[in-house]
Amino acid sequence: MHYPDPAIILSYFSGQKMRIVFRFVLPFLFIFVMQPFIMPLPAQTLPQLNLMPLPAKVELGDGELQINQAFSVSVTGHDDPLLRRAAERFLSHLREKTGMTALDMSVTRLPPATLVVEVEQPTESVQRAEEDESYSLTATSAGARLHARTALGAMHGLQTFLQLVEATPTGFGIPAVSIQDAPRFPWRGLMIDASRHFMPVDVIERNLDGMEAVKLNVLHWHLSDDQGFRVESKKFPKLQELGSDGLYYTQKDIREVIAYARDRGIRIVPEFDIPGHTTALLTAYPEFASAPGPFKIERNWGVFNPTLDPTRDATYKFLDALIGEMAGLFPDHYFHIGGDEVNGKEWNGNANIREFKRVHHLATNDDLQAYFNERVERIVRKYGKTMIGWDEILRPNLPKAAVIQSWRGAQSLADAAKQGHRGILSAGFYLDLVWPASQHYAVDPMPPAAAGLTDEEQKRILGAEACMWAEYVSAENVDSRIWPRTAAIAERFWSPQSVQDIPSMYRRLEVVSRQLDGLGLTHNTSYPIMLRRIAGEGPGSDDISNLRTLADVVEPTKGYTRMKTAVVKPTALVPLNRLVDAARPESVTTRHFAEMVDAFLANPADANAKSNIEAMLNKWHAAALALPPLEEKSFLMEELGPVSQSLGAASDAGLQALLHFGENTPAAQERRAQQLAVLDAASQTRAQVTLAIVPAIRKLVEASAGEAATVPPSK
Amino acid sequence: MHYPDPAIILSYFSGQKMRIVFRFVLPFLFIFVMQPFIMPLPAQTLPQLNLMPLPAKVELGDGELQINQAFSVSVTGHDDPLLRRAAERFLSHLREKTGMTALDMSVTRLPPATLVVEVEQPTESVQRAEEDESYSLTATSAGARLHARTALGAMHGLQTFLQLVEATPTGFGIPAVSIQDAPRFPWRGLMIDASRHFMPVDVIERNLDGMEAVKLNVLHWHLSDDQGFRVESKKFPKLQELGSDGLYYTQKDIREVIAYARDRGIRIVPEFDIPGHTTALLTAYPEFASAPGPFKIERNWGVFNPTLDPTRDATYKFLDALIGEMAGLFPDHYFHIGGDEVNGKEWNGNANIREFKRVHHLATNDDLQAYFNERVERIVRKYGKTMIGWDEILRPNLPKAAVIQSWRGAQSLADAAKQGHRGILSAGFYLDLVWPASQHYAVDPMPPAAAGLTDEEQKRILGAEACMWAEYVSAENVDSRIWPRTAAIAERFWSPQSVQDIPSMYRRLEVVSRQLDGLGLTHNTSYPIMLRRIAGEGPGSDDISNLRTLADVVEPTKGYTRMKTAVVKPTALVPLNRLVDAARPESVTTRHFAEMVDAFLANPADANAKSNIEAMLNKWHAAALALPPLEEKSFLMEELGPVSQSLGAASDAGLQALLHFGENTPAAQERRAQQLAVLDAASQTRAQVTLAIVPAIRKLVEASAGEAATVPPSK
Repeated sequence: MHYPDPAIILSYFSGQKMRIVFRFVLPFLFIFVMQPFIMPLPAQTLPQLNLMPLPAKVELGDGELQINQAFSVSVTGHDDPLLRRAAERFLSHLREKTGMTALDMSVTRLPPATLVVEVEQPTESVQRAEEDESYSLTATSAGARLHARTALGAMHGLQTFLQLVEATPTGFGIPAVSIQDAPRFPWRGLMIDASRHFMPVDVIERNLDGMEAVKLNVLHWHLSDDQGFRVESKKFPKLQELGSDGLYYTQKDIREVIAYARDRGIRIVPEFDIPGHTTALLTAYPEFASAPGPFKIERNWGVFNPTLDPTRDATYKFLDALIGEMAGLFPDHYFHIGGDEVNGKEWNGNANIREFKRVHHLATNDDLQAYFNERVERIVRKYGKTMIGWDEILRPNLPKAAVIQSWRGAQSLADAAKQGHRGILSAGFYLDLVWPASQHYAVDPMPPAAAGLTDEEQKRILGAEACMWAEYVSAENVDSRIWPRTAAIAERFWSPQSVQDIPSMYRRLEVVSRQLDGLGLTHNTSYPIMLRRIAGEGPGSDDISNLRTLADVVEPTKGYTRMKTAVVKPTALVPLNRLVDAARPESVTTRHFAEMVDAFLANPADANAKSNIEAMLNKWHAAALALPPLEEKSFLMEELGPVSQSLGAASDAGLQALLHFGENTPAAQERRAQQLAVLDAASQTRAQVTLAIVPAIRKLVEASAGEAATVPPSK
Repeated sequence: MHYPDPAIILSYFSGQKMRIVFRFVLPFLFIFVMQPFIMPLPAQTLPQLNLMPLPAKVELGDGELQINQAFSVSVTGHDDPLLRRAAERFLSHLREKTGMTALDMSVTRLPPATLVVEVEQPTESVQRAEEDESYSLTATSAGARLHARTALGAMHGLQTFLQLVEATPTGFGIPAVSIQDAPRFPWRGLMIDASRHFMPVDVIERNLDGMEAVKLNVLHWHLSDDQGFRVESKKFPKLQELGSDGLYYTQKDIREVIAYARDRGIRIVPEFDIPGHTTALLTAYPEFASAPGPFKIERNWGVFNPTLDPTRDATYKFLDALIGEMAGLFPDHYFHIGGDEVNGKEWNGNANIREFKRVHHLATNDDLQAYFNERVERIVRKYGKTMIGWDEILRPNLPKAAVIQSWRGAQSLADAAKQGHRGILSAGFYLDLVWPASQHYAVDPMPPAAAGLTDEEQKRILGAEACMWAEYVSAENVDSRIWPRTAAIAERFWSPQSVQDIPSMYRRLEVVSRQLDGLGLTHNTSYPIMLRRIAGEGPGSDDISNLRTLADVVEPTKGYTRMKTAVVKPTALVPLNRLVDAARPESVTTRHFAEMVDAFLANPADANAKSNIEAMLNKWHAAALALPPLEEKSFLMEELGPVSQSLGAASDAGLQALLHFGENTPAAQERRAQQLAVLDAASQTRAQVTLAIVPAIRKLVEASAGEAATVPPSK
């Protein structure tokens, strides 16, 4: 059980202007306001504003600010072109959100205006990791004022304003409110792997829009790996010519994306992974490898042998030129060199390298890599950048300026901080593991392992990054793996640690997911398109309702099981067009169903709850019956037979449980046991998806007979 | 009853390689192949390929060409960069359609390849209206060959290939086929009005993608009108500064869009409407008006007074400079000067103009406008362009080179052709009238009025254009007004006149509509976003199911009734965010329901048909009951009360009719009469939408009692 920080709670109740607006507050909050204000309140009592991430402090006022076609914006104070453009985009978004096409799109320099935005000072010419991102936003029925030290803070405030806008009985508006907000961590990132599957510029740009909406500020762009080197090099053109299958970003693309990100208050940190994960690079330039070439772009997933030769000066000369070129292209102060997963096989197999280790007293390959990292760090530093690497680079002699990105666990983050390094956490935020949002939400960038750190050491933990590795995502479904879950992760990176209410998170996440639709993200729109492809296009293709009913209640196999459970070995050449690729990481239908089951079990006399459950089970049962004939139409449907059978069996078990609910006879006990066996079978992963509704149905079956005790809530 | 051209039918049955592939052919075709091949067949027997527009000649072969990750494309013959880029886009689309992310994206110059594309000659540097667009496409299980005279034809063939791709039980593939295709008309256009509501570049570009998919080749861009002048002028910058509300295309935008269109085989014809429809222009430069200014950008819809002064040399000097600038910006050989709807009020009110008319023997304002047009035509010609105008410009002295675009009726098109002018038809293709696709489909660009023309005169009819006037469309819903209906119109412009089978058209239209989704058109994706806005965003906003059920069976009020039935006068300042704006022009649900009703009435013993109808009626009835409580949440829901009441009443009438079907007692007769009265009431337009299902329910009610005779099919 988590309680909010008392300071935050107080801010909700001690403000001069504080009046409860019932439309925005859960009714039972009313009970609390009758009590002394200082008692700690459960997080559920936060006002029901559809904000994500939740601001540090919110005070609700009285009434609302109406938003109509007369709405206007002015920016005062420091005249930052960045802010002007942000205000123009804000107006565009507001127009899209309300459908008010005649909104005045011009941003004036002078009040009066409905929303007056004021910033005090310019941002740095190259955005820094620790700039002031705080803002305050106040709105009354007379107008709104957004104040920030920098344009960065103001941009965040504009996003908050947009999230506050809603249709009310009288028109569009935002509630009267006073918000003081600042991020908990300065480094709030999303890593996108554009190597394993290439992600075109429009994919990157729409995800930058999504990041802006939830106040993330770092795009960590994983640009080279065994499966592709994705940036045009003018100095080493074979990198893109031989190492990318023709799928790479031109330098013009890169500059465009950087400008796009900059406009949204987002830094771009490029990663060029060395000395391992370099098959594509060495396909182009085998002369820098630790083993004789030639090499071919890797089509499989995993850890591979090709590795740079860390013993030859030619390698460093090459890296100096390449890093120099890329350091010029990417203005950010940080430069990511990867450094992960060197398997050492080529090093062990190379007599020269073995000799080099002996001469230089490098006992292990880790020592050799540490030597490599130190030389690379000098190159990176020479070009004015700070080096980042994955936690493998953490070694005693690593210069303290280097930043550690922890992926293997939180301990290395704490270790790095203790040893004087700054660090960011990614362990626990791997989007490719297909976890539910709640599981990521429970991970804190300041992990329990950091509990023993001094304040100064803790300050070295800059933040965290969600990571979208791309073995099993393409341009088509990558959004559906990133969103909406990353909005919950963004809240973890931004909001006070005390914000922990999972039902509130999920409630707001559904709203944010729809807002992200409006930005052009395809996490929802690609879903029916992919299902239609599976069903086989043709007359009547509009009717994918039964397939969709099935797809709505399955989830892709989790963790690292995708490879293990594959019938056809997954490689870069295997299409991502199956149900497992279309299914969303987390079934919303299942969550709603589980809530219904909990409500019913808490009160089995509730006929309404019972009939809602019955309707859902019937719908699933009917879909399971309707699907088999469709399976013959398209080869992509074939594997779904066992899945629809499981759906039929599980929903039937649920219907039986409901029908005989509370019968405590030996026959009922027997039936219950049989149904549980059916559910065991239905819970197996088939076609690499799992039937997410089984646990909730199991709960229903378990409670249906025998000691039908009160059951604790699902989540 | 229409029959296909015997020449076309023969082509389906006389080919050497002709073997019927049953998967692609309606089973009852089998009956026909047993008969002599020369009999004319009803159009319904066309193979069930999901092609739109249907090609001129199709022969089906045996088997299919499998499409897997080894698929490759080469282009041979004339090396046209246009074709190379088209082939690359083709591969991209193929990748998106199949989800095969590892398709080789490179286009080679040399066979062998799965698809070999050959073109003979270059296209003109500026695409001409009458270039050869024909192509032939043959596919066997061994490979495919696409041959065309020019890249334009090859591009059309690539689109045909894409439409042929489908998922089969064994993988993706296209049927073995031989297609000979060429357009019926050289001018196949879509006009988009970007003045009344501004349409940003991305709207234009995605619609160009849609146009390419259905083989349209002219974007007529309506760029100036009373409500806005939408192009940057370097010579007359006040046009955009004062005449556009800041919403205009820069010259860079224009060049980008032109290049984008050119790549897709689409010409861009700009329209600058003069001498009427010039309020925005005259807001910037009142000195050229026929009445003293100042003027203000018009916010209302209709025909307004501000008009250029056709009597002063200064006006022509201005037009010469402006047309010169725009003629340089737009490379097309045609230049549209509008010329429609001059109300003459300013001319009548201006003594100088009256005097000018007297001196020049110009009896009427039409004569004065003819004088103006002749002078403008000389300017347009001076800049190397051919003038087009709306049918008002057709006057005896108009130079024969000028092209007439007929909007008031087909007669003026025939008249123009008789008088030596070339012409294009738009009467019957106004998308803003919200007609069903079948109504546009029934209009022929070679209208009955042209029946008496000689061959040479008929040749002057270049084609036709669908027109998207923008009073009631914004960037958000414009796609839903254009698509999918314009795909059916495109078939009318391209395919043989004999292609007339409406059920076939609708069946294919549903498939094409989904293909257009894949191109990023928003006619389907914007729908739930708009409904969610109406419902009021918030937790649970995912559940717009009842609102959607209602919206699925209503259609916006048709023709020019939107203004007449408005409660709030519609102007440029009134948002387009109501149900009438979200509802689609043609309810697919209603069409399916009407088909069910027809099937049931043809065989009332069909219990399955009956229960399907009942399920739909029950769903509507339930939605009608569920909606009223939601109407209080958002101001945009308020007007829906009477609509959901109508839905409830109409579906109840249908359910009663079904329950008592065939009872021929006086009580049943009485009930029937009551139900018909209920339906009369439910058929009224409310909230500017009509309940599209009423006619089909009426048919059910009418047949339910009394002389329940056999009823003819709905459509």
